[in-house]
Amino acid sequence: MASNTFGKLFSLTTFGESHGEAVGGVIDGCPAGLIVPQDFIASELTRRRPGGEFWATTRDEDDDPIFLSGLIDHTTLGSPIAFLIQNKNKRPGDYQPYEEGWRPSHADFTWEKKFGMPLGSGGGRQSARETVARVVAGAFARKLIEQSGITVQSFTRSIGSEAIADIAAINPDEANHDPLGCPDKEASQRMTALLRKLKEEGNTAGGTITCLIRNVPQGLGEPVYDKLHARLAYAMLSINAVRGFEIGEGFRSAVMNGSQHNDPYGLHKNAIRPISNHAGGVLGGISSGETIWFTVAFKPVSTLMQPQATVNKMGETIVMQPSGRHDVCVVPRARVVTEAMAALVVADMLLLSRNSKL
Amino acid sequence: MASNTFGKLFSLTTFGESHGEAVGGVIDGCPAGLIVPQDFIASELTRRRPGGEFWATTRDEDDDPIFLSGLIDHTTLGSPIAFLIQNKNKRPGDYQPYEEGWRPSHADFTWEKKFGMPLGSGGGRQSARETVARVVAGAFARKLIEQSGITVQSFTRSIGSEAIADIAAINPDEANHDPLGCPDKEASQRMTALLRKLKEEGNTAGGTITCLIRNVPQGLGEPVYDKLHARLAYAMLSINAVRGFEIGEGFRSAVMNGSQHNDPYGLHKNAIRPISNHAGGVLGGISSGETIWFTVAFKPVSTLMQPQATVNKMGETIVMQPSGRHDVCVVPRARVVTEAMAALVVADMLLLSRNSKL
Amino acid sequence: MASNTFGKLFSLTTFGESHGEAVGGVIDGCPAGLIVPQDFIASELTRRRPGGEFWATTRDEDDDPIFLSGLIDHTTLGSPIAFLIQNKNKRPGDYQPYEEGWRPSHADFTWEKKFGMPLGSGGGRQSARETVARVVAGAFARKLIEQSGITVQSFTRSIGSEAIADIAAINPDEANHDPLGCPDKEASQRMTALLRKLKEEGNTAGGTITCLIRNVPQGLGEPVYDKLHARLAYAMLSINAVRGFEIGEGFRSAVMNGSQHNDPYGLHKNAIRPISNHAGGVLGGISSGETIWFTVAFKPVSTLMQPQATVNKMGETIVMQPSGRHDVCVVPRARVVTEAMAALVVADMLLLSRNSKL
Amino acid sequence: MASNTFGKLFSLTTFGESHGEAVGGVIDGCPAGLIVPQDFIASELTRRRPGGEFWATTRDEDDDPIFLSGLIDHTTLGSPIAFLIQNKNKRPGDYQPYEEGWRPSHADFTWEKKFGMPLGSGGGRQSARETVARVVAGAFARKLIEQSGITVQSFTRSIGSEAIADIAAINPDEANHDPLGCPDKEASQRMTALLRKLKEEGNTAGGTITCLIRNVPQGLGEPVYDKLHARLAYAMLSINAVRGFEIGEGFRSAVMNGSQHNDPYGLHKNAIRPISNHAGGVLGGISSGETIWFTVAFKPVSTLMQPQATVNKMGETIVMQPSGRHDVCVVPRARVVTEAMAALVVADMLLLSRNSKL
Repeated sequence: MASNTFGKLFSLTTFGESHGEAVGGVIDGCPAGLIVPQDFIASELTRRRPGGEFWATTRDEDDDPIFLSGLIDHTTLGSPIAFLIQNKNKRPGDYQPYEEGWRPSHADFTWEKKFGMPLGSGGGRQSARETVARVVAGAFARKLIEQSGITVQSFTRSIGSEAIADIAAINPDEANHDPLGCPDKEASQRMTALLRKLKEEGNTAGGTITCLIRNVPQGLGEPVYDKLHARLAYAMLSINAVRGFEIGEGFRSAVMNGSQHNDPYGLHKNAIRPISNHAGGVLGGISSGETIWFTVAFKPVSTLMQPQATVNKMGETIVMQPSGRHDVCVVPRARVVTEAMAALVVADMLLLSRNSKL
Repeated sequence: MASNTFGKLFSLTTFGESHGEAVGGVIDGCPAGLIVPQDFIASELTRRRPGGEFWATTRDEDDDPIFLSGLIDHTTLGSPIAFLIQNKNKRPGDYQPYEEGWRPSHADFTWEKKFGMPLGSGGGRQSARETVARVVAGAFARKLIEQSGITVQSFTRSIGSEAIADIAAINPDEANHDPLGCPDKEASQRMTALLRKLKEEGNTAGGTITCLIRNVPQGLGEPVYDKLHARLAYAMLSINAVRGFEIGEGFRSAVMNGSQHNDPYGLHKNAIRPISNHAGGVLGGISSGETIWFTVAFKPVSTLMQPQATVNKMGETIVMQPSGRHDVCVVPRARVVTEAMAALVVADMLLLSRNSKL
Repeated sequence: MASNTFGKLFSLTTFGESHGEAVGGVIDGCPAGLIVPQDFIASELTRRRPGGEFWATTRDEDDDPIFLSGLIDHTTLGSPIAFLIQNKNKRPGDYQPYEEGWRPSHADFTWEKKFGMPLGSGGGRQSARETVARVVAGAFARKLIEQSGITVQSFTRSIGSEAIADIAAINPDEANHDPLGCPDKEASQRMTALLRKLKEEGNTAGGTITCLIRNVPQGLGEPVYDKLHARLAYAMLSINAVRGFEIGEGFRSAVMNGSQHNDPYGLHKNAIRPISNHAGGVLGGISSGETIWFTVAFKPVSTLMQPQATVNKMGETIVMQPSGRHDVCVVPRARVVTEAMAALVVADMLLLSRNSKL
Repeated sequence: MASNTFGKLFSLTTFGESHGEAVGGVIDGCPAGLIVPQDFIASELTRRRPGGEFWATTRDEDDDPIFLSGLIDHTTLGSPIAFLIQNKNKRPGDYQPYEEGWRPSHADFTWEKKFGMPLGSGGGRQSARETVARVVAGAFARKLIEQSGITVQSFTRSIGSEAIADIAAINPDEANHDPLGCPDKEASQRMTALLRKLKEEGNTAGGTITCLIRNVPQGLGEPVYDKLHARLAYAMLSINAVRGFEIGEGFRSAVMNGSQHNDPYGLHKNAIRPISNHAGGVLGGISSGETIWFTVAFKPVSTLMQPQATVNKMGETIVMQPSGRHDVCVVPRARVVTEAMAALVVADMLLLSRNSKL
């Protein structure tokens, strides 16, 4: 029920403001006896950290999580796993210039309307810094679903107008070897050039990420409201800057005929399986055993490094000057967040599915 | 927690299989004293019923809901509102031809894997017939949010490859006067022609619906996991055949620059408001006071009126013959379901938002 | 979250007012493949029905549940199980005499304050008639937990001042052969005499029920907030007229020394088990494998068949005359409700416990 | 859903093991703008700390909570309030002597059965140390309900066989001036003498606490499963060592006749109110506006300072020697925990009740 909690059986509650003491979370419902090596958590966090790339924010923190409970020798005890990550590089002053006006397309306007106090006062609960806690919890979820053989892998599909040309030709696992997370080298180069141009202009870009969940057993997801892809959509749209979600062919399916979109069954190594996978691995909300694939759209970062004409809180026209430390594009760093949320959904549905039949 | 329940404070639990006794639901959390005229519910249900159009199923039922509790003189009492709609025109035999094989891209395959018994045995929990209960509950939600001035209006944006040419030129309210729910007459004619052609081929089409929620007060939605658009995505992807969701510019935002996508503030009738609305009425998950708009993608109906090559449950290649009564395209009839789910989300977030500040 | 729903994984949502069309419920989360014979449900319902005893209400209904969904051939499908029981013997007029004043110690006063409309208008959501739905759901829960060997058995421990003299001397299963549900014949006779006297006076009695849950596997219940006995207390206090709950020795434990109350371990048929069971089968909220036993206190029925001095809604002193059909004591008929709620709690905790370790 | 979370709208999630790094919690759903002075939290925590009394444990920690988020200048921001309390005085070695056997009537036996690993490994999630987090959250809940004028006050009613003689004669507020929290000086002296005797024997005592919630507005609590007293029972039985709960007359009501127990209405300062309050301020699960009063039974502490005969994990008879630091009786220190949980329930029901009518 609590709105800072995600998940039913495997749940994550997060807390913390961007410029407060710390951000962190509490994982509840993780079965006892799961080993989650600390260096695996660290490597996931590193994927989210800016690594000095020209397109990434210069706010860099080492993001070492401190575990307060629920673990001994990297093994889960069955009790809640609480952790925190200190905000070492906080600069509440970065919000100062914005006190006279709300930043266009940023959440400070609505926060103030909802809670009756400026977002700046809390130093930013709505900052993407919150997602660091999702990555930590995602590491636990990944290790849990790995027990059933399930893996999660995403790749950068497009940045701005630059996209992978032939999606069928790529190897998704190559994404991990590219700075932008794009498995198509040629596309990655085009994306890099675009980002360089936008950086010079003080402008920003959005993009899309496609995520694959492989080796999912049949039967995950619930038939009506908790369809597996409905839970995925819920999870993805809860990530900062995400504006769209599609499962399988998604919006493309809306322009296909039924005879094009259907996935007839065939025999594959003595198993009856769909011979194509336009559905994205989910039928009627329940996993079919095929690879689940979905795509997420991110809007461009709203904080620009160029002046913007707007009005201040008195309604007077002003030109807002840029300030703070921000990304030109969040897509490459958002891959690990996307995967973490996907793993959280799958872990939750996996635990729930154990009671579907006697 | 229950997977057949949607909503936190204003919640709907549904039940019923397509070819069982009845479908229905229980609405819990609706404040006492709300008047919901029976003819309003009836008119909403009529929008979902096939009306004899060539592209709609010939399974027609009068869909009169029987209210069992929670109401007196059409006024809510504060107790749960239970209702049922009898399945008068059920034909479990329609599933007979499918017993030897699973229908391509249909949910019977995964249902059987999950629950260990054929979907046909239950006569179809995963049928879109379940959505009739959503429409009834949606009528209550609409009347509740109307108390705060909020209205919900959707329109058919595209069917297959035929789409409204200029979205800025249409009046969404015209949708209610078009058989396909398309406010652009010329586009509606093209859609009709396409559907006629597909009908002749025994083929089917998908499409998209755009939905507007107007006069939403500022402050609805929660900042992290229960972002207003995350709840909308969750609700929409739970509707049968929905494969994608986008808020505001959605996937288009991913190809825009920040300077194009941002919505700067201006003064409008002495109120400070964004001067454009690419965001779709939501900033950081919280309503900004602007019109909320989102788009939903529906895949084509998977039951074709043409033979399909597939394999049966023994793995032998067969040609599945068509059977049953199905739509060529569900989009026009799905508008009211989309609106109902949107109203349920907004009603829920409206009640939740009353406790955000002292 | 919904307040008319009980349970997390195995959940029951109920609806209906005492003098409305019907009462009923929706069971969600029951695993597929469970066989629940109709005559078992009927026999449970018969235990709740007044059977013509002098101390029971003369409102008698056959209480045949109509199942709307979730079942085929008495076997659960995995979809929600909806049922209703029509109110055939309703008499909304029975509430008429009370319209000028609230009945002392009855819920109509608070209902009106909370919901802004008289309880009578809804014909009584707070009537014990609601518990008929709990008994139906309880039958499913009992069959589910029976799969793990678990049984539930309660007995009438006291009525008014008449109680079983020596609790260690009785055989709880004898309760099923006594009209008052009391396994001690001599005590039952004293209780009957007391009830006869109260009936003549137009007065009423409360009493206590002790309930045993046998063969519970170790490990049910969660260590902190969802302690097994905390869930049981929650369930029991939700039953009409229940005013107290104790697990094991309960209030008696508060006057025992630690050396008297402790249950040391011993060896029993090669298994390490506590040699006594003051704890009531639960340690730290988790089942120990011993019989769970708890006691529930019921207040006397508040509707008297004698005049009561009170004030009407204008504040004028009146003498309220008795009306309607009511029990002298609800305890004998409440046994099956107590058992049903206990079974619902255990079923829920049983499903939850499957994910406590890898 | 998560089992380490309590509350629906105003919720508390706790974490931490007794001998781990820290215990703490996350409060979610507290409205923005609430001022909670740090010294109020500190004074509540002091009430829970052992103060050097002979009957209290010598494990003493300063229990300074560190707030990580959700607050600025002691004012709530609307975001989750996370806090932790370091375990400065932890001694995991204290569990060493118990490794060969489970302590009689302690939770280590069931923890090991449920989670597959010894409780000692985690250093004790089931220790009463967890309740320190409840006290911190309770301070927030108290300040919230104080905005509606509601106050919570408890007193020690009995310790072992020593009890307040005449409950009608005491002033509950005197409890705060007595070391044992007993407002009856003479009874307090008898209790002290009893505790001294038990201390010498290495024995322990239980007891009872009665709690009053005053100035509760009419209409709190939900009519069926979330009855106000059902939520209170759930909360109370979740506290370590609690074995019983009763609302109003509770178990005494079970021996009263209806004519004795009923609370007729009268006129009091022009308001219609019950003239007695056997019901304990709740009718049909909803607050009546009268003082809510309930009583909680605590079992004696299970860790004795005397040898106990039991068996070890091999099933061999052993005499377990005492070890560690424990209370002779937890009742005096448990008062503040009882009040904290009561405040959490009332805060939650207060927020929920805002949506009962239009």
